[in-house]
Amino acid sequence: MRTDDMILVSIDDHVIEPPDMYERHVPAKWRDEVPKVVKNDAGVDQWVFQGQATSTPFGMAATVGWPREEWGFEPGAFSELRPGCFDVHQRVRDMDVNGVLASMCFPTMAGFNARTFNEAVDKELSLVMLQAYNDWHIEEWCGPYPDRFIPLGIVPMWDVDLAVKEIDRIAKRGFRAISFLEAPHAQGHPSFLSGHWDPMLQALVDHDMVLCLHIGGAWDIVKLAPEAPVDHWIVVPSQLTMLTAQDLLFGPTLRRFPGLRVALSEGGIGWIPFYLDRVDRHFQNQAWIGNSFGDGKLPSDVFREHFLACFITDPSGLKLRDEIGLDVIAWECDYPHTDTTWPESPEFVANELARSGCTDDEIHKITWANASQFFRWDPFAHTPKERATVGALRARATDVDTTRMSREEWRKRNEAAGIGVV
Amino acid sequence: MRTDDMILVSIDDHVIEPPDMYERHVPAKWRDEVPKVVKNDAGVDQWVFQGQATSTPFGMAATVGWPREEWGFEPGAFSELRPGCFDVHQRVRDMDVNGVLASMCFPTMAGFNARTFNEAVDKELSLVMLQAYNDWHIEEWCGPYPDRFIPLGIVPMWDVDLAVKEIDRIAKRGFRAISFLEAPHAQGHPSFLSGHWDPMLQALVDHDMVLCLHIGGAWDIVKLAPEAPVDHWIVVPSQLTMLTAQDLLFGPTLRRFPGLRVALSEGGIGWIPFYLDRVDRHFQNQAWIGNSFGDGKLPSDVFREHFLACFITDPSGLKLRDEIGLDVIAWECDYPHTDTTWPESPEFVANELARSGCTDDEIHKITWANASQFFRWDPFAHTPKERATVGALRARATDVDTTRMSREEWRKRNEAAGIGVV
Repeated sequence: MRTDDMILVSIDDHVIEPPDMYERHVPAKWRDEVPKVVKNDAGVDQWVFQGQATSTPFGMAATVGWPREEWGFEPGAFSELRPGCFDVHQRVRDMDVNGVLASMCFPTMAGFNARTFNEAVDKELSLVMLQAYNDWHIEEWCGPYPDRFIPLGIVPMWDVDLAVKEIDRIAKRGFRAISFLEAPHAQGHPSFLSGHWDPMLQALVDHDMVLCLHIGGAWDIVKLAPEAPVDHWIVVPSQLTMLTAQDLLFGPTLRRFPGLRVALSEGGIGWIPFYLDRVDRHFQNQAWIGNSFGDGKLPSDVFREHFLACFITDPSGLKLRDEIGLDVIAWECDYPHTDTTWPESPEFVANELARSGCTDDEIHKITWANASQFFRWDPFAHTPKERATVGALRARATDVDTTRMSREEWRKRNEAAGIGVV
Repeated sequence: MRTDDMILVSIDDHVIEPPDMYERHVPAKWRDEVPKVVKNDAGVDQWVFQGQATSTPFGMAATVGWPREEWGFEPGAFSELRPGCFDVHQRVRDMDVNGVLASMCFPTMAGFNARTFNEAVDKELSLVMLQAYNDWHIEEWCGPYPDRFIPLGIVPMWDVDLAVKEIDRIAKRGFRAISFLEAPHAQGHPSFLSGHWDPMLQALVDHDMVLCLHIGGAWDIVKLAPEAPVDHWIVVPSQLTMLTAQDLLFGPTLRRFPGLRVALSEGGIGWIPFYLDRVDRHFQNQAWIGNSFGDGKLPSDVFREHFLACFITDPSGLKLRDEIGLDVIAWECDYPHTDTTWPESPEFVANELARSGCTDDEIHKITWANASQFFRWDPFAHTPKERATVGALRARATDVDTTRMSREEWRKRNEAAGIGVV
C-alpha cells in the first residue's frame, strides 16, 4: 500500500484544555468556582481549582512543537505551545498535515481519567466541573468536527452511582467511551476484582460504550527505587498494562460482562504474545485451580473478545500480529506528547507495517478498521473514503508549518497573535 | 535436529534441602543451632531456625511427582515428595530420564536468595548456616557429579562486606554464580542504583562469576488488588523481570561494571523484544535526558552484552529470537516446580524450537552453548559430547519410573523405604 492511500484513526491523543473552557459550560451560580488558569510569579500558567494549584498543562505533556533539546518536566505557559495542543481548529489542521483522519483525545488538566476532580475536596463542585469538561469536549472539541473525533468522556469515580448517571447522560450526547483508572486499587479505590465498579461496567455495556484504560494510572502500583532516573517514568508505564489485563481476565469482570469492551490506551502491543503464552500455559498447567473461561475457551480467546490494544511504534509486536490477534491491534498518534510521531506518522507507521510484512488488508485493520469497529464509530459517515486518506488530508494542509521552534520563539509568535495569552 | 541428539543444560532448577544437610557442615559448637526439620501436629515438616518456623519445603515448590489435581499451596512432608527433589543421586537419575545433562539449582528453604537467613535475628548464626548451605551445595550436591551441576551460591545480603568475603570464599571452591535479589529495594535493602552493592558486583567481576536474579524476589514491588486470585501469584512474577533489567540498564550498574554478567532466572524471553524496542526508541527520542550507553551503542546493545535470559516455554519469544539476540537465550527445566516440563522436556522444547524455525546451530546455542559460555562452565569436561545427548542420557535411565503418584502413595512408598522420614 502507498503511504498516501492509508487511512489513519488514532485512538490515543491528548487535548490540552484551553484556559476558558469551563466558564462556558457551568450554570451561572458556579461561574466563579470554575478552574482557572493563573500565571504565577515565575510566568508559569497553573490551573487553580478549589484554592489548589492542581496542574500545569505543560512539561512533557505538550512538547509537539519543540526541538527535543527543550523537552523536560519544567512547567510553562500556554503561549509556548503549538496551538494545536489546545485549539481544536488548529488541531484539525495538524491532523490534516499528518494525514490523520480521526482522533480520540484524553484530558490533561482533568487527569487522564478525572483524577484532578477526584482529588479535590468539594465533590459537588467537582461533579459540576467534570460535567462541564464532558460538555465542552462534545460541544467545542468534537462538535465542530464530528468526522474527526471519537468522543471520550470522564466519570466521577468517587461515587459509582454518579458514574452510572454520567455515563447515561453522556451516552445520549454521543460519547463512545470513557477514560478510567487502569488499576483503581493502586490509587485507593476498590479494585476491578471487588465488584464495586460493576454498575458502571453494566452501564457501559448497556450503552455499547468502551472502557478506556490509559497507562500511567497504574503508576502507583509499582515501588521504584528511590534513585530511579527519569527514564523509568517514561519507559515503565507501558510495560505494566499486563497487570490491568490480568486483573480483568483472571478476576470476575470479563466473565461477568461478556459484552464489555476495554481499550488499553498507550499500552503497546509487544507484551501481548508473551502474556497470552503465559496465561494459556498457566490455565492448562494449573488445572487444580479450577478456572473456567467458557466452553473450550482459553484465556487468550477471552482476551481477544474484550480488548483492543494500540501502539505508536512497536516493530516486534507487529511481527507477532497473528499471535496477538489481528482484530486486537490499533494505532495511535499520541499527539502532543513526546512519544508522538507527528508530523511524520504516516511514513513512520507505514515503514513499520511494511517491515513486518503486513498485507493491505492487515494495514487497513490496524490503522483504522479495528478502531472504528471497536468504538462503533463510522469514519466515513461524513467523509467519503477517498477523501479520508493520508494523501487527501495532506493535500489540503500544504500551508501548515510543522517546523519545530523553541519555547521562546513560540511565545513571541503566539503572544503577537494573541494566542494562549493568560 | 533429532530430539535424541539435543544437549540440554538447564540454568534454573531447584533443590529441596534435605533435613540433615546443615549438621554436617557447621563447626561442632554450632551443631545444636542448625536449622532443623520438625514435624508439627498436623504432620507437616517445618524448618525451624532460631526458634522460628521459617518455611516448609512443599506446596508448589515440589510438585514434580504429583498429579495436577493435587497441586496447591498446602504444606506437607518430605516423605510425600519424589525423592529427586532432595536426594542428589535420585535427582541425577531424574535428569537422565529427562535427557538433561546439567543443571543449576536454586535453594528453597534458604529462599531463592538467602532470604531466610536475612530475616533471622542472629546474623552471626545466619552466616554460619549460609556458609553451611554453600558448603553442602558444593560438597554434597555438586561434588559427586561435577559434570551435572553448575554450582550456585548465596551471600549474606545483610552486610555487603561479608557478601564480598563469601564470594571470595566460594569462588575458590568452584562456584560459578550467586543467587541474589532481583529488586533489593522492594525488600528494604538499598537498590542496585544506590551503589551499595558495588563491592559485591566488583567481586563477581573479579572472579568471573554470574549474578543470578530469580523471579519472585521482586514480588513485593507490586501492589496487587486485595482480591487478586492465586493466578496472579503464578502469572505475574515473570512479567516483572523487565523492572530488574531497567534498574540495571538505566541505573549506573552496567556502565560501572562493563564485565558484569547477569542471568535473569525464570524471567522468560518474550518480554525482551518489546522492552528493547521501547528503550532504544526512548534513548533516541528523549535525547534531552543526555543518556550515554557508550560509543554508538544503543541500550539494547548494552543489554545483550550483560544479560542471559531463559525460558521454560515461550513460543512467541522464540519466534523473535533475532530481536532478542541469539546469544542471550538459554533454556531451563524448573524441576521440581509446577512449571517444569519434566519428564518430557526434550519433546516439549524440541517442538517449540522446531515450530519457531530454529536451525541446528541455533538450537545448540539455546539449549546448552549459551549457558555454558555465560557461566564459564564446560559441559564436556567430564562427559564426552556423544554421551551428553538426550538419547545417551535417557538410554541409561530406562528403569526410572516417571509415573505421577498421589502424595499419599508417595508417603507409603517412601516411608516403607525409609526415604524422607523425619
